[in-house]
Amino acid sequence: MIEAAQTLDGWYVLHDFRAMDWTSWKLVSKEERKAAVDEFIQYLDKLNEADENKTGSHAFYSIVGQKADFVIMTLRETMEELQELENEFNKLAIADFTIPTYSYVSVVELSNYLAGKPKDDGPAEDPYQNPHVRARLYPELPRWEHICFYPMDKRRQKGANWYMLEMDERRKLMYSHGLIGRSYAGKVKQIISGSIGFDDHEWGVTLFAHDVLEFKKLIYEMRFDEVSARYADFGEFFVGNIMDNEKLEKFLAIKD
Amino acid sequence: MIEAAQTLDGWYVLHDFRAMDWTSWKLVSKEERKAAVDEFIQYLDKLNEADENKTGSHAFYSIVGQKADFVIMTLRETMEELQELENEFNKLAIADFTIPTYSYVSVVELSNYLAGKPKDDGPAEDPYQNPHVRARLYPELPRWEHICFYPMDKRRQKGANWYMLEMDERRKLMYSHGLIGRSYAGKVKQIISGSIGFDDHEWGVTLFAHDVLEFKKLIYEMRFDEVSARYADFGEFFVGNIMDNEKLEKFLAIKD
Amino acid sequence: MIEAAQTLDGWYVLHDFRAMDWTSWKLVSKEERKAAVDEFIQYLDKLNEADENKTGSHAFYSIVGQKADFVIMTLRETMEELQELENEFNKLAIADFTIPTYSYVSVVELSNYLAGKPKDDGPAEDPYQNPHVRARLYPELPRWEHICFYPMDKRRQKGANWYMLEMDERRKLMYSHGLIGRSYAGKVKQIISGSIGFDDHEWGVTLFAHDVLEFKKLIYEMRFDEVSARYADFGEFFVGNIMDNEKLEKFLAIKD
Amino acid sequence: MIEAAQTLDGWYVLHDFRAMDWTSWKLVSKEERKAAVDEFIQYLDKLNEADENKTGSHAFYSIVGQKADFVIMTLRETMEELQELENEFNKLAIADFTIPTYSYVSVVELSNYLAGKPKDDGPAEDPYQNPHVRARLYPELPRWEHICFYPMDKRRQKGANWYMLEMDERRKLMYSHGLIGRSYAGKVKQIISGSIGFDDHEWGVTLFAHDVLEFKKLIYEMRFDEVSARYADFGEFFVGNIMDNEKLEKFLAIKD
Amino acid sequence: MIEAAQTLDGWYVLHDFRAMDWTSWKLVSKEERKAAVDEFIQYLDKLNEADENKTGSHAFYSIVGQKADFVIMTLRETMEELQELENEFNKLAIADFTIPTYSYVSVVELSNYLAGKPKDDGPAEDPYQNPHVRARLYPELPRWEHICFYPMDKRRQKGANWYMLEMDERRKLMYSHGLIGRSYAGKVKQIISGSIGFDDHEWGVTLFAHDVLEFKKLIYEMRFDEVSARYADFGEFFVGNIMDNEKLEKFLAIKD
Repeated sequence: MIEAAQTLDGWYVLHDFRAMDWTSWKLVSKEERKAAVDEFIQYLDKLNEADENKTGSHAFYSIVGQKADFVIMTLRETMEELQELENEFNKLAIADFTIPTYSYVSVVELSNYLAGKPKDDGPAEDPYQNPHVRARLYPELPRWEHICFYPMDKRRQKGANWYMLEMDERRKLMYSHGLIGRSYAGKVKQIISGSIGFDDHEWGVTLFAHDVLEFKKLIYEMRFDEVSARYADFGEFFVGNIMDNEKLEKFLAIKD
Repeated sequence: MIEAAQTLDGWYVLHDFRAMDWTSWKLVSKEERKAAVDEFIQYLDKLNEADENKTGSHAFYSIVGQKADFVIMTLRETMEELQELENEFNKLAIADFTIPTYSYVSVVELSNYLAGKPKDDGPAEDPYQNPHVRARLYPELPRWEHICFYPMDKRRQKGANWYMLEMDERRKLMYSHGLIGRSYAGKVKQIISGSIGFDDHEWGVTLFAHDVLEFKKLIYEMRFDEVSARYADFGEFFVGNIMDNEKLEKFLAIKD
Repeated sequence: MIEAAQTLDGWYVLHDFRAMDWTSWKLVSKEERKAAVDEFIQYLDKLNEADENKTGSHAFYSIVGQKADFVIMTLRETMEELQELENEFNKLAIADFTIPTYSYVSVVELSNYLAGKPKDDGPAEDPYQNPHVRARLYPELPRWEHICFYPMDKRRQKGANWYMLEMDERRKLMYSHGLIGRSYAGKVKQIISGSIGFDDHEWGVTLFAHDVLEFKKLIYEMRFDEVSARYADFGEFFVGNIMDNEKLEKFLAIKD
Repeated sequence: MIEAAQTLDGWYVLHDFRAMDWTSWKLVSKEERKAAVDEFIQYLDKLNEADENKTGSHAFYSIVGQKADFVIMTLRETMEELQELENEFNKLAIADFTIPTYSYVSVVELSNYLAGKPKDDGPAEDPYQNPHVRARLYPELPRWEHICFYPMDKRRQKGANWYMLEMDERRKLMYSHGLIGRSYAGKVKQIISGSIGFDDHEWGVTLFAHDVLEFKKLIYEMRFDEVSARYADFGEFFVGNIMDNEKLEKFLAIKD
Repeated sequence: MIEAAQTLDGWYVLHDFRAMDWTSWKLVSKEERKAAVDEFIQYLDKLNEADENKTGSHAFYSIVGQKADFVIMTLRETMEELQELENEFNKLAIADFTIPTYSYVSVVELSNYLAGKPKDDGPAEDPYQNPHVRARLYPELPRWEHICFYPMDKRRQKGANWYMLEMDERRKLMYSHGLIGRSYAGKVKQIISGSIGFDDHEWGVTLFAHDVLEFKKLIYEMRFDEVSARYADFGEFFVGNIMDNEKLEKFLAIKD
C-alpha cells in the first residue's frame, strides 16, 4: 500500500470573495454609505486585533477584474470561528451591497515531504512546539502589495497518478519543486492550505508579493517542473492589490 | 458477465443546502423575523420527534463558505416523505429568505463487498432482520460537532474501469479501503448512500466528526488507497458545524 | 463503412421541469392562488383527454430535491403540438410562479438492434402497422408511483467508440443489455426516446416504477453490463413521485 | 507542415436565441402588448425586405423546450450590419420581454475539400463569380417547417487529431461524409458556417427540413461515419418550428 | 530539469466585457441618458489622453452576439492603475446599465522563443531599452476596424505535454508558428499577454484587423500548425467592431 504523506495542520482558512453591487450602493444616501463604511472598518479593525493578539490573522485585498471586487482571507484556530466571522460579515450593512462570488475553505498545512530528518538520538520532538514550524502553521500574513490565490489538485490519471507514486518518488519531486519556491524567498511569500474534505480542490495556494509580476514568474517557472507539468490541475486564479482603510474609503466613495 | 454487487437499502436521504438572503432578512421587522425563527424551530422540533420515534433521522448544520449557510439532511422510510418534508420547508416563512444552492437524493446503502460470509448451516438469515445491519440502514444520526458531505462516482475509463473488474477484485479493493475507514472508528462516523437513478453521482458520502480535521485526515489517507487513487471521481465538498436552537437563533439574530 | 442502426420513431416528447417560486406564490391572495390552481387542473384535464383519445400521452410527477418541483412530460404526434402545449402552459397563471429548470426534447424510438428477424416469405411487414410496435412507439404512459429521467450518450473515445463498432457487435451488446431490462418486466416500465438533432444528448430514458428502489437496482445492474460500463455517458438524473389533482392541491396549498 | 483547407466565405451570420419573460409580458396592458407585437412585425418585415433585395437573408423559428422561445438568424454582408440588427432588436419594445439565452457568430463557408477540380486549360476561374458557389455563400434561407442548429469542433486528441491528418486523408473522409448529406437532398437543407475566431466552436451547422425527423435521421447516420464518429465534438442542439406573422401573434397572444 | 522560457513583460492589461441592460436603459429619462453618455465619453476621452501621453493604451469595441455589448481593454504600467480604472468605470452612471459578462487580467509578454540571438561581443543589451522591444511591450493599440480576443493554454497531457518538451523543441515549434503570424503582417496585429497567476488561462490573445475575415483565416491556418494542433487549448472567443464617440451615441440612442 502506498504510504500517505503526513501533514501538520495549523489555522483554518476562509477566503471570501465579494463583488460590489455598485448600482444599489449608489442608490442609498451619503449618510447610509458613510455608516456602512464606518461599520465595515470597525469589522476590519476587529480582524486586526486578532492579528495583533496572535489569535488569528487576516488579509484584505481588492481583486482586479470582474471575478470579485475584494477578498477577505481569515485564519482562525477553529472552523467555528471562521463561520462566525462570515456570519458577522453578512450582518454588516456593507454586505447588503456585495454579491458572494467565490469562497474557499482550507487549513494551513505542512507536509512531511519537506520535513527535516528526525534527530538520531534523544526523544522525538513535537513539531507543533518547534517555533519555525509554528510560524508557518500559524502565520502572520504580510501586508505586501499584492495577493494571488488559486486552488489546485494532484492528478489521478493513467500515466500521471500522483497518488500511486511511492513516497520516495513524491518526496524527490516535491523537493525539486520546493527549490523553485525557495529561490523566490523575500519576493513571494507562500501559504499552502489543505482542503481535502473541506472544499472542491485538494489545496489552496495563497501568494503575497511586493511586485505582482513575481507571481507570474514563479508559477510559470514551476509549470516546467515535473510536479506541475505532469501532476497538477489548477482551478480559478485571483489577483489583487492591498487595501487599507484609506484605500477602502476611496474605493467606496461616490460623488454626490 | 460481470457480477454486480448486491446492496441492502435503508432510509431514503435528502440533503437540502440553503444560503440565506441576508439583505431581505434584514429588511423585515423584528416581529416577522421572530415569527419565522419560531416557526422554523417548530419544524426542526418535528424532525427531532421522528428521530426520537425512530421513524427517521435528521441532521442540521451550518455550512462554512459561500456554498450554503446551512444544510438539513433528512432520512425517511419513503421518497414521498422526503418530498413532503421539502414541501413543508418551502412553505415556512424562513424559506422565503433562503436560496436553494444544492441538494442530493439518495438511499442509505450497504454493499455485499463488506458483508460477512453466510453461515454454513441453518436457514439463510434475512439481513434486514439483523440488528447490526438495521442500525446501519436506519441510522440515528449523531449530534457530533462537524459534518462533511460529498458525492462521488467510480470511474469507467479505459485502464481504470471499476465496472469491468471482477467481483473478487472489487471485494479485495473495497476490503482494503474499508480498513482505513475502520481505523477512524470513534473519530469519524460515515453514512454511505447510493444515488444511481436518484441523482447525478453514484454515491453520497456523509461524515460526522468531533474534530473537523479528521475529515481531511481520513479522506487524504484514503486517496492513496487504490480504490480512490485509481477509481474514484469526486463532486463538490461541503463542511459545516452543528446547529441547535440556541445557535440558530444567534445565527439569525439581527441588531435593530 | 459502419452500418447505422435503423430506428422506428413514434411520438415526439417534451420533458418540462419547473421549480416553484414559493416566495411569490405566498405573496398573492388566496383567491388568486385558487384561480391559478383551478386553471392548472383544467390544463392537466385537457392533457388527460388526449391520453383517453389516444392522440397523445402525458405524465405529471413531483421531483425530489432542488432540481425541480415537478415535471410535465408530454407525448404528441408532431413537434408543433409539443411547442403549443409548452406555449399554453407558459400562459397559465401558475407559470408565473414557476422557474424553468430543465427540459428535454426527443422522439420515442425503437432500434433494429432488438427487432425480430424478417419472415422468410411473404411480403415485408410494415412495422408501423404491427400493434406491438405501435404500442411501444405511441405508449400510454402508466400511472405508476415513481418516475426517473436521465439523458445519455454512447461514447466515441479511443478504445471505446460505439459508433466504430460493427453492427453485429453492437447488436450482441444491446441484446445482453436488453436482457437485464426484461428481467424487470412488471417492475420498471422503460421509454427510450432518441434526441440526436433535438437536444444535447443522444437519448432520453424515462422509467416508471411502483417501488422507487427498482430504478437504482436496474440502473446499477446495467452499469456492470458492457454497454453501460464501457460505452455510456450519463447526464443529469431526476426522480419523482406521482401527482394527481388532490396531491397537486395539497402541494400548492398555503396556510393563510 | 500540414496543408490547411482553403475556404470560400460568404455572408456573416448571427443566431440570436431568446426566451420570453412571460410573467412581465402578461403584466403590461393589451395596448402595450399590441404595440410591441406590431413593432416586432415591422422589424421582421424589414428583415424580409433584405431577403427580397438579396442583400441578406434571415430565418425566424420558435424553439421547442426551455433553451429559448425563438431564434432570429440573420445573414449579412458585414459584421457591422449584424451588430446593427442586434442593436436594433434590443431597442424594440418586445426585447424588454425577452431574455438572451444563446447566440452564435459565424460566416457562411465552403471548404475546398468538396470543390470541383480546376479546369485543365483556360484562365483560373474566380470561384466567387461562379453562380453555384454564390448561391451557397449567399444563400436564400428556405421557409421550410423546421430548423436545427448546433455548433461543432473537430477533435485534436492523441489518436484522433483532425488537424494532424494530411489534406488527402481529410478530403477522403469529407467526401464520404458529404455523400450522406447529399442523399438527403430535397429533405434537409444544410448551411455550414465557420466560426474560428468569431465564437467558441469551429463551425455552426444550421439545418432546415419539412419533416423534423429528417434531422435525427441525417445526424444519426452521419455519426457512424468516421468524420463524426472519430473526429467530431458537438455543442448544444436547438430545434424549432417555423414562425410567420400569424403564428407570432398567436404565440404572443394573452387572454385578457 | 526543463528550461523555462524567459519573458519580457510590459504593460498590465484588463479586458472588461459588459452587456447593456437595455430594459433599464430605456426606463430612464432622455436627460439621464444624455448625462450618462456624456460622462461615459468623458471617461473614454481620459483613456485617450493616456494613449496620447504614452502612459498607457486602450481599445473600445462593440461585441457581436450576446456575450457582451462592448469591451474596454486598458493597458497600464501597474496593476493598481488597472484596478482604479475599473473602479472609476463602476462609478459612472452608465455602469448601472451594464452587466459584467467577462473579464481578463494579463500582462503584455514577449518570450525568448522568438528573441534574436545575443550579440557575440560587446556588453549584453538591456532588452527593455531596445526600441523595437519597447514598442511591443508598451504597444499603442491600433484603431483598426475589428477586434478578436481569446484566452488559451498549452496542454499538459500524456503524449502532448508542452511543459515537458525541451527548450529547443519548443523554440522550433514556436518559430514555425510565428511564421504564420508574420505572413499576416499589415492585416492582423497581434498582442500576446501572459496571465499565469493573474487569470484562469495561461495567455490572452488580442487581434486587430481591418477585415474581420482575417481573424478566421489566421487562426484556422495556425490550427494546422503543430503548436496549435497538438498543444493548444482555447477558451471563449469574442469578436467586435470599433466604436468611437459617434458610434457610441448611436449605439445607445433610444427613440422617445
